[in-house]
Amino acid sequence: LKTKEPVSQELVDSALRADQQSIARLMTLIERRASGVEKVLAFLQHRTGKAHIIGITGPPGSGKSTLVSELTRRYRESGRSVGVLAVDPSSSFSGGAILGDRIRMASHSGDSDVFIRSLATRGALGGLSRAVMDCVTVLDASGKQVIIIETVGVGQAEVDIVRTAHTVAVVSVPGLGDDVQVIKAGLLEIADIHIVNKGDREGSNRTVAELRNMMHLAPPSAQSWSVPIVRTIATSGEGTSEAVGWFDAHHGWLESSGELKAKILNIAARRIQWTVDDLVSRIVTSHQPHFLELAGEVAEGRRNPYDAALALLQFIQCETKEDIH
Amino acid sequence: LKTKEPVSQELVDSALRADQQSIARLMTLIERRASGVEKVLAFLQHRTGKAHIIGITGPPGSGKSTLVSELTRRYRESGRSVGVLAVDPSSSFSGGAILGDRIRMASHSGDSDVFIRSLATRGALGGLSRAVMDCVTVLDASGKQVIIIETVGVGQAEVDIVRTAHTVAVVSVPGLGDDVQVIKAGLLEIADIHIVNKGDREGSNRTVAELRNMMHLAPPSAQSWSVPIVRTIATSGEGTSEAVGWFDAHHGWLESSGELKAKILNIAARRIQWTVDDLVSRIVTSHQPHFLELAGEVAEGRRNPYDAALALLQFIQCETKEDIH
Repeated sequence: LKTKEPVSQELVDSALRADQQSIARLMTLIERRASGVEKVLAFLQHRTGKAHIIGITGPPGSGKSTLVSELTRRYRESGRSVGVLAVDPSSSFSGGAILGDRIRMASHSGDSDVFIRSLATRGALGGLSRAVMDCVTVLDASGKQVIIIETVGVGQAEVDIVRTAHTVAVVSVPGLGDDVQVIKAGLLEIADIHIVNKGDREGSNRTVAELRNMMHLAPPSAQSWSVPIVRTIATSGEGTSEAVGWFDAHHGWLESSGELKAKILNIAARRIQWTVDDLVSRIVTSHQPHFLELAGEVAEGRRNPYDAALALLQFIQCETKEDIH
Repeated sequence: LKTKEPVSQELVDSALRADQQSIARLMTLIERRASGVEKVLAFLQHRTGKAHIIGITGPPGSGKSTLVSELTRRYRESGRSVGVLAVDPSSSFSGGAILGDRIRMASHSGDSDVFIRSLATRGALGGLSRAVMDCVTVLDASGKQVIIIETVGVGQAEVDIVRTAHTVAVVSVPGLGDDVQVIKAGLLEIADIHIVNKGDREGSNRTVAELRNMMHLAPPSAQSWSVPIVRTIATSGEGTSEAVGWFDAHHGWLESSGELKAKILNIAARRIQWTVDDLVSRIVTSHQPHFLELAGEVAEGRRNPYDAALALLQFIQCETKEDIH
């Protein structure tokens, strides 16, 4: 569970001064769970809590990354610094995440107040959710005023990640198929703001009407926030100022209603759960020989998965008594 | 962690005789982790290992459920019994999974050798993956000769589930956007068989050509299986016999090459891991008051998530010493 390179205080200090390369380096060390990362995160945690965390999600093909780029532009125009974490469904051999970063960065290159990072969904899932939240901590501590988490709105893990934002925007787009409608229904409950992107497309009025209908079908909420529907054309930037206005309005409402406090408690709970999952998963794989032996027994039908899992769990207590990181 | 209703031996026996309602009831008890479920699964495990497990995945809008229905029809024509587990990205309030079941069942109603079940992606993810595999165990033990696991090909968890099949078919469809291409690239590595559905659509030749190109870009595999591309029109059933032929060919190759054994070992390992995740998650939530207290401390910045996770893990050893289920 240890890696050679420890995290230096210089690196942390310069990340706190919002140095782009240091932030990037720190995130890489977090993804690798380098030695000392836990202490650094505990240290950074005390410097967080100021950022507005926004989640943006929607089906494939809804133009999310262009939209995020344009929203970033609007925030910059209002003088706010922005961090973007894009959770990309990418291939290990196509190197999608890295390629994605380059394309995304291009339109904001040279702006030291914009930091963009793609995180590939490859690898352990508990690990990914945890890594995203730790990267939010880094961006928040480095002084980014707005942090955007972007995920595709399919896949429970991806939806769970975006729900850790304060404000969730669900992106729809006219003219996608029935399957996509089902997915949208699943996302309906988590939307604080609806964005109908590609608003100049045929059928966008129908999409807006459908959203309104679906919202009326939802059980009435005890909360007083009324979910707005914003129409955007991300490619031209149209409607993105209005969207930012609604994000700000939602944040104001969260604060005045007391909902923000409840949300932060909920986020903390998820974060602990994901950390537990990640730690357990790493302990299990660190007992590789024993794990493989058990897998062999299960494969041959000599043991059932439940007994094997119990056997592995016996190791956890002694591991957690030592220092895990 | 206990629920009132235990699983009766009568229910298990009648599920083993492939009684539809008993299989359905048993699966519900598994999803709820009713008392005695672990023992039942251990018992059923000894009766498994005969089914050919097929995974079918692809982007939203690729017509997977129609395709699965037609493949089921082909298998039935060749005299084989079929179980289908569809992992649906559905909403809790739209009741998508249940609705989906009804629509899916309609075309095979009255056929006691077809069992179809939708599993909603709601709830704990470790729990879902585990539940899917346990449902495979039930179907296998009940004598289903072919088991199809259908998931949307976006979302790491959904892809991970489908990878537990012996044979994975990735469904593409002509004319989807760039985002979908990226997703397809991510799925390319897991395909044993490619299916280009809606093969009568404009652009299907291009889709086939693109797939061939992408396959040439992939690192050469040490394995001797050459991935075929099958064109189907699910709505008319065209090409589905050919697809079934390739599934059978792949299964034959798995057996003769020795790959099946490696695959089964791998599946066992994942299954143990998911069971560990699920058990740990249930232990954590069963310490709700303590968990909430820790979440409160993290939310207020008095503790970091890592320390909170370590504190929770201290409980696991004593829990696993008792009987968990």
